[in-house]
Amino acid sequence: MRRGKVFAAVALILLSPGIALAADGAAATQNLLWLAIILMSARLFAPLAERIGFPTVLGELLLGVALGNLPLLGIRFFDGVAQDPVIGFLAELGVIVLMLQIGLETRLADLLKVGGRSAIVGVVGVITPFLLGTFVAGPWLLPGLAMNAHLFLGAALAATSVGITGRVFRDLGQIDTLAARIVLGAAVIDDVLGLVILAVVSELVQAGSVSLGEVGGLTLRATVFLVGSIVLGRTLVPHSSRWLARLDKGHSMLFAQVLATGLFLSWLAHLAGLAPIIGAFAAGLLFEPMFLKSFETPKIVREVESLLPPETAETAGSLVDPLREALVHHTRQQHEHMLEPIGYLFVPVFFVLTGMQVDLSALSHPMVVAAALGVTAAAVAGKLVTGVTVRGIANGWVVGWGMVPRGEVGLIFASAGKQLGVVSDTLFSVIVVMVILTTLIAPPALTFLLRRRAPQVRIG
Amino acid sequence: MRRGKVFAAVALILLSPGIALAADGAAATQNLLWLAIILMSARLFAPLAERIGFPTVLGELLLGVALGNLPLLGIRFFDGVAQDPVIGFLAELGVIVLMLQIGLETRLADLLKVGGRSAIVGVVGVITPFLLGTFVAGPWLLPGLAMNAHLFLGAALAATSVGITGRVFRDLGQIDTLAARIVLGAAVIDDVLGLVILAVVSELVQAGSVSLGEVGGLTLRATVFLVGSIVLGRTLVPHSSRWLARLDKGHSMLFAQVLATGLFLSWLAHLAGLAPIIGAFAAGLLFEPMFLKSFETPKIVREVESLLPPETAETAGSLVDPLREALVHHTRQQHEHMLEPIGYLFVPVFFVLTGMQVDLSALSHPMVVAAALGVTAAAVAGKLVTGVTVRGIANGWVVGWGMVPRGEVGLIFASAGKQLGVVSDTLFSVIVVMVILTTLIAPPALTFLLRRRAPQVRIG
Repeated sequence: MRRGKVFAAVALILLSPGIALAADGAAATQNLLWLAIILMSARLFAPLAERIGFPTVLGELLLGVALGNLPLLGIRFFDGVAQDPVIGFLAELGVIVLMLQIGLETRLADLLKVGGRSAIVGVVGVITPFLLGTFVAGPWLLPGLAMNAHLFLGAALAATSVGITGRVFRDLGQIDTLAARIVLGAAVIDDVLGLVILAVVSELVQAGSVSLGEVGGLTLRATVFLVGSIVLGRTLVPHSSRWLARLDKGHSMLFAQVLATGLFLSWLAHLAGLAPIIGAFAAGLLFEPMFLKSFETPKIVREVESLLPPETAETAGSLVDPLREALVHHTRQQHEHMLEPIGYLFVPVFFVLTGMQVDLSALSHPMVVAAALGVTAAAVAGKLVTGVTVRGIANGWVVGWGMVPRGEVGLIFASAGKQLGVVSDTLFSVIVVMVILTTLIAPPALTFLLRRRAPQVRIG
Repeated sequence: MRRGKVFAAVALILLSPGIALAADGAAATQNLLWLAIILMSARLFAPLAERIGFPTVLGELLLGVALGNLPLLGIRFFDGVAQDPVIGFLAELGVIVLMLQIGLETRLADLLKVGGRSAIVGVVGVITPFLLGTFVAGPWLLPGLAMNAHLFLGAALAATSVGITGRVFRDLGQIDTLAARIVLGAAVIDDVLGLVILAVVSELVQAGSVSLGEVGGLTLRATVFLVGSIVLGRTLVPHSSRWLARLDKGHSMLFAQVLATGLFLSWLAHLAGLAPIIGAFAAGLLFEPMFLKSFETPKIVREVESLLPPETAETAGSLVDPLREALVHHTRQQHEHMLEPIGYLFVPVFFVLTGMQVDLSALSHPMVVAAALGVTAAAVAGKLVTGVTVRGIANGWVVGWGMVPRGEVGLIFASAGKQLGVVSDTLFSVIVVMVILTTLIAPPALTFLLRRRAPQVRIG
């Protein structure tokens, strides 16, 4: 009976949204509750989504769609969230941290040395869906919208989510196949191409007209910002890392350097007229594990190392050598993982907030549903075409389906367009449905292909 | 020459605050720059402060004082920061994370089993300075202020910073002395007593009058909230941890559970009329390492463990046993450290913002300086008295000086009073100067005492 009472009390607290309304209206304190709910429910949804084979990001999006459409059921508790400036800033911080993480996980050398094959797949995989979206699917399926809206639709179709793509191959244990490497290389190129397209499209829309000179100027500005910040940054970061480590070798200084650089370049990118996330991605590319070697290794690594016999000792053997290897691996990975807690807190805010902007009532119109399905078909077709370019070298279907998931990148484009007032609520819903469907179809399709076909060529 | 040009370009970027003003005024994006500057300069100041023997928090405060008083030099770049609602929310998030961390680092059992000695030291160390501040130093040194302001002065004097106190003893390698344990126990008690005093004083001030019934009601409400959330929480947390770990054993779920609980109880505390930080501290007390054992051990621990011979093997020896011990220790500590990255980012925002609110021009009045010095003297005297209560058991001077630093707790009280409109700019400056001076004097005084006296009694 005692436990029953405890649970009743908890249920009363949890199920009384009325309590919140009774509070003396301090919006800032209300944000604490929203943040707690978003954080916790994103974490609860994620494993449920994963268990049925969806990527985590899909769980967060669907949660957002559910929360955002509660007013359809008469529940208006979350009405203020989507408009709250503090929550909006936290979401922006979330997507900046995410792009900084993606940058950190991308080796600049991999970007540069990536095979011609990946470049071709990447370029075809960007241009085909962009043209399909802007000049075919847009005018044909959504004829009422302006050219600018069709441009954003094309940009969203051009995106490839390197995170989701990589994850699907990793989950299937296929990360070391030739097809996977080509797709990953192409997805990285698409990330950069997509960011340039986003900048160009955003500026074209803001400038109000399309001129070749402007396109050239914008591409130049984007290139100068990206190349400039990367060249300057990579000249400075090894020095600044050494200087900062001389002040404080601890993890907090390393963390502060990376995050402050990300925030600073995000602000600088905005100042240069680009999207802040472009700056965050560039900032991530500046840091290579070797630049950070002046900083302290993690405490557990130092502790275990102090227990091991000296490197010169002849005692090294079956236990000591693999131990050392694990420690080196852990140290090298630490800088990729250092932003994770910030990410856990704020990245879901972005995706949940994005999902909340999907107006399900828009889908009550058969024409909108038809448009969403048509756009999704164009999105899949536009990426499957890339498979043709690898004919005879790798499995074209696997490469093509690997490029299909749009993930967070497509959503970032849709949000940017919405902020600029170009992407209407209907188009936004269409794009989000396309992102959800492509992200949802690709994993089972890949699983089917990889299990059915002969084992892929494995390299090194 | 090439490097010269690179540095000139960087200097141009860094030294042109004019650029910021030229941006198209998106306040949200400006916040990214402020956040980067606060984060980075707090990290740069901290090791410099530590090198001359100051605790980190002092570096952040002094940085804030410097930034906040730039207008005296005609530099108005940071004028908007102190009033920005987004930065204000991030600061609140910072202090909530800090109190959650302090709660996580405090074992509830230690709070309960702490000796009568610590209780006496704690109670004397709270009551004496509270009375001194409210009824002696306040009316005598700041006669122009209302009774409510004197109450807040007393509350700020009553505070003890368990973080700074513990850190001073640890830095001196004296954490396992009897004096250190008594002081740490008392500081923990003072933390709770201080939080109750803050709640009582805040409510008295808001209610506008002082009545014994109200004091009783408030104390009851504070006690019911604290005891209720702790009893209920500790009943639920072991179950919820098991349920959540069944969904996802990863670090992100553990992190989300702790942080969401902290945010939820902060909001609930506010709803109950208490300060949000009281909720955050209570949330921290709910989690004991053993409740979290259902969650996965860190990846490095699992990797190293997989390399070690099985527990039953006879091969265990000089290398394997200490390795296992290091792994167990690391796993146990992980939940105390999991919030650190969030803390690195947001805790400095609170202290820098607090420092920014110190108006140095107020110190141009000799009367204010005299009041600040007088209040500081009362603050030191009020805590040194506690040394008398341990006469014959431990070194009274060491215990007394160990209680002197007010640190972040005193500042939290001052901020709370300022938010309520009770603590004027002058009184706020006086309190911050007192906090800075007590935090600054104690470490050298303790160092002097501990190096001069005979070695302290050490316990196991």
